[in-house]
Amino acid sequence: MDTVEITLQTGTVPAVFDVTAAAARFVAGKGEGLLSVFLPHATAGLAIMETGAGSEEDLLAQLEVLLPRDGRWRHRHGAPGHGADRVLPALISPSLIVPVIGGSLTLGTWQSIVVVDRNRDNRTRRVRLSFLAG
Amino acid sequence: MDTVEITLQTGTVPAVFDVTAAAARFVAGKGEGLLSVFLPHATAGLAIMETGAGSEEDLLAQLEVLLPRDGRWRHRHGAPGHGADRVLPALISPSLIVPVIGGSLTLGTWQSIVVVDRNRDNRTRRVRLSFLAG
Amino acid sequence: MDTVEITLQTGTVPAVFDVTAAAARFVAGKGEGLLSVFLPHATAGLAIMETGAGSEEDLLAQLEVLLPRDGRWRHRHGAPGHGADRVLPALISPSLIVPVIGGSLTLGTWQSIVVVDRNRDNRTRRVRLSFLAG
Repeated sequence: MDTVEITLQTGTVPAVFDVTAAAARFVAGKGEGLLSVFLPHATAGLAIMETGAGSEEDLLAQLEVLLPRDGRWRHRHGAPGHGADRVLPALISPSLIVPVIGGSLTLGTWQSIVVVDRNRDNRTRRVRLSFLAG
Repeated sequence: MDTVEITLQTGTVPAVFDVTAAAARFVAGKGEGLLSVFLPHATAGLAIMETGAGSEEDLLAQLEVLLPRDGRWRHRHGAPGHGADRVLPALISPSLIVPVIGGSLTLGTWQSIVVVDRNRDNRTRRVRLSFLAG
Repeated sequence: MDTVEITLQTGTVPAVFDVTAAAARFVAGKGEGLLSVFLPHATAGLAIMETGAGSEEDLLAQLEVLLPRDGRWRHRHGAPGHGADRVLPALISPSLIVPVIGGSLTLGTWQSIVVVDRNRDNRTRRVRLSFLAG
């Protein structure tokens, strides 16, 4: 298995970060197999979605409805509402798999691999890319 | 890695499509390994759930609560409410893995692999099945 | 592929069960590869999240908001609200992958692998662990 960890600067506002290009570079020339994308963090998740047409903002806005960053959370470390960030990975998993054929991701035209990160306290994120050939 | 793409006719109303039989046929005779099911579309997701006892309709009805197809979405291409379809894959991922033993899926008694598709604009869906032997 | 099934006693109240230690024991000494964790049940899910600081209770409380165990569900077998349990796996998948390096899970400091189970009717759960070396 080939495996590397890349680092993202994720800033201090909730945002969605596209890691498709890094994943594509990682699998280039590697033939057939499965790419694992894994986020070793407990307050962010991974998704495969369209980017660049407003859906990132739509997702972040709807997460404020589904997991409000308000006072309801028992987990009280960090900034107010931070408990919501620790529940997010149960709904948006930090682990996903993309098949690779001929060294290329089999993503559809409108699909990108993104890190979904509402956490304001953690400015750097690591993403592990692993390729299992088959 | 063995990999194929199958095609589904998904119609023009929100629905859940069972692809378990196609997945089972694909892995038959293949021994031990991991089956990747991957949907190369940005407006639908994959789930493992019970079918045939009302839960598909329950899921679609509750998605109307969690991701309403109304005017809130910034993404405005396509039919009204279509922005909700582009957020769905963040909550219902287009990628999942099922272990295979002796050429059989290790699904539990009540589990089926389904495509969850609320999108009215896309009548045909592709599903990629990939098997990595181990 | 190495594969085993472990059994959990999950009791009769909604709860989150940590299976990280069992997963770590399973991959110990196995080198590089991908760990598949798979739950062959239609009324529970798997998550990777922080445990021990209130987030399990936060998740269960918010699931009562997102998927209330009330009378709305078409699926009516089992206890009242049981239909919610059968929709849960669409949002919290029963399948996930964790990369393994040098026989160790690549989980982050605050990440644990958990079974999320609101179902009161099923006191025993099985979890399949499978390791594909690479």
